Amino acid sequence: MKDSLNIKAALQGSKPRNFPMVSRVVFGSGSFDQLDEILEPLRGDAEGIVVFLMDDVFEDTHLHGRIPSMEQDLLILISAKEEPKTEQVDALAAHITRNASDLPVAVVGIGGGTLLDLAKAVAIMVNNTGSSAEYQGWDLVNTPAVYHIGVPTLSGTGAEVSRTTVLMGPERKLGINSDYTPFDQVILDPDLTIGVPRDQWFFTGMDCYIHCVESLNGSYINAFSQSYGEMALALCKEVFLEDLSPEESREKLMMASWHGGMSIAYSQVGIAHALSYGLAYVMGTPHGLGNCLVFQHLEAFYPEGVRLFRQMLRKHHIELPLKITRSCSQSDFETMIEVSYGMEPLWENALGPDWKSIISRDQLLEIFQKI
Amino acid sequence: MKDSLNIKAALQGSKPRNFPMVSRVVFGSGSFDQLDEILEPLRGDAEGIVVFLMDDVFEDTHLHGRIPSMEQDLLILISAKEEPKTEQVDALAAHITRNASDLPVAVVGIGGGTLLDLAKAVAIMVNNTGSSAEYQGWDLVNTPAVYHIGVPTLSGTGAEVSRTTVLMGPERKLGINSDYTPFDQVILDPDLTIGVPRDQWFFTGMDCYIHCVESLNGSYINAFSQSYGEMALALCKEVFLEDLSPEESREKLMMASWHGGMSIAYSQVGIAHALSYGLAYVMGTPHGLGNCLVFQHLEAFYPEGVRLFRQMLRKHHIELPLKITRSCSQSDFETMIEVSYGMEPLWENALGPDWKSIISRDQLLEIFQKI
Repeated sequence: MKDSLNIKAALQGSKPRNFPMVSRVVFGSGSFDQLDEILEPLRGDAEGIVVFLMDDVFEDTHLHGRIPSMEQDLLILISAKEEPKTEQVDALAAHITRNASDLPVAVVGIGGGTLLDLAKAVAIMVNNTGSSAEYQGWDLVNTPAVYHIGVPTLSGTGAEVSRTTVLMGPERKLGINSDYTPFDQVILDPDLTIGVPRDQWFFTGMDCYIHCVESLNGSYINAFSQSYGEMALALCKEVFLEDLSPEESREKLMMASWHGGMSIAYSQVGIAHALSYGLAYVMGTPHGLGNCLVFQHLEAFYPEGVRLFRQMLRKHHIELPLKITRSCSQSDFETMIEVSYGMEPLWENALGPDWKSIISRDQLLEIFQKI
Repeated sequence: MKDSLNIKAALQGSKPRNFPMVSRVVFGSGSFDQLDEILEPLRGDAEGIVVFLMDDVFEDTHLHGRIPSMEQDLLILISAKEEPKTEQVDALAAHITRNASDLPVAVVGIGGGTLLDLAKAVAIMVNNTGSSAEYQGWDLVNTPAVYHIGVPTLSGTGAEVSRTTVLMGPERKLGINSDYTPFDQVILDPDLTIGVPRDQWFFTGMDCYIHCVESLNGSYINAFSQSYGEMALALCKEVFLEDLSPEESREKLMMASWHGGMSIAYSQVGIAHALSYGLAYVMGTPHGLGNCLVFQHLEAFYPEGVRLFRQMLRKHHIELPLKITRSCSQSDFETMIEVSYGMEPLWENALGPDWKSIISRDQLLEIFQKI
């Protein structure tokens, strides 16, 4: 859950944040096929343009054929191999504006966290001027986004429910956090996660699991987020430690991701995220994998969480890559440590205001060298 | 959770319902004081009229004084002693239309389930013609409701999050179920439940607990509602069986109610509600109490749920009234049985399609006579 950092501002304010929720949600096997009737009233005179952004792994699949697109629509296939970037969002928004005679009536994102984040950002940018980089931050968006619909095909990121869209910008990786960011409609069809490669399924699921362990063990949480986090954590344990049917497993992981995303409202991540940001900054490690790589070494801080995590790894025969920092230079490690150590609210959430006396830069180095 | 019956239509359809959620929520001690800034943009030129409907138990209390009302606003105190009625809604809507120079910019309901249901219904009716009785049913509302805000001061009904508002009409007790019914904004301030009388606290909390036991033990549930229901149930167990601090207890019961309300999306109640509808039809028993009165005798159907319920009664020294049906006539009992036995989807949810071979009218009589 990449956006957790972003609530620093809210958490440090003196009053609880007024949190926007997804306005409509449909859950269930086959619910993807309701997309057509969801779009119908938005299209108005049947000439409204819908933009579909879909992960290109679905090119020429059955799902591709089920997209209810009309002649005037734009269907854009996008690779999720790289993280979403502000320039990519700007290019997409420009492409849409160029190719559509009118403002689209809806933007639909179909895919994992990357596609969902892109859809949220593009829905904002087709109706706002300038570059998306100008809106990275908190509540900088002036004009409402176009109606946007999220269709997750991968469970764990929480992007389907959050009020941010995290983008790599020219200067920084930061979310567009705004009341216009959350989806207007989400379709939770667990069948769409059939066929996700095992490693991706596991690492994305761990995004949710590790997030929950960190936030539930932190001091910044309240009863609202705790209840969502506990539900998500319980579902992750069922999915990754018990022997559910494939159908039940898909359904429960989709709900874990949903609730895990909701738990972000009033919570904060901790040590795993602080370290994985440092790692990703230097190595470009994908978020889910990076969290796993650091989390395995955090037994001292999250004993129960790490113990169960190791059980999950064994049960699903997941082998984490070894020694990925082997060829890092002294200066690489210094950068990792610098970035990680700079994540003050995460450390404070995990270890309290005296966190600097509890964990040293040397301890961070030790962990990074083990990875 | 009085509205569970109402999802019969959705459940019997062939596809999952597309569920509208509350658009914004703020949770936390003291969050009531955000009401002013929430209303500010709605008021526009500062002359927009806000209608506050508040439970009259708060008359001249500290809360009364904290209402951010302006000169042009209407503050209406309402007794929650009786269930909301269609004629009451119509009279309120007429009163507002008569006394306000313009359509109100917001309707704010402050109170328990009755006040929340009234606020939802009034917000619809100030912007729709005719009587509210014409809109009892499913998706009969044509024009969007005025922006409406729910401020629960009692936890358990789930009215703060549901898409219905249950009204006693000239012909029937039925909800206005529509996409315009849910609140646009909910303020969850656990401090507002300070001072609720113990019995009322208990019976309203049991509304949530019993609802969850029934829906989780039914066959109509899916993974979405199951996850919300399990969370609500776990929170109820904490609140009513463990020794939480008063603050934590208030927070957790407020969240239990919220999640319990969400779990209604794709679930159905069962035997306790079927019986309590029959009981209320004849005796006028309040919903929370009625559920408790019948639930205590349902050990055969919900063994674990009833066992814990009895523990809860003992722990909180709650004494249920005895023999309230003592003076009922033969024909009273027949009516109770008739109404209860007619709740087909509830029985089917609880006992399967062959429910009539599992429970007889005589067994119902036996239970009603015990109450």
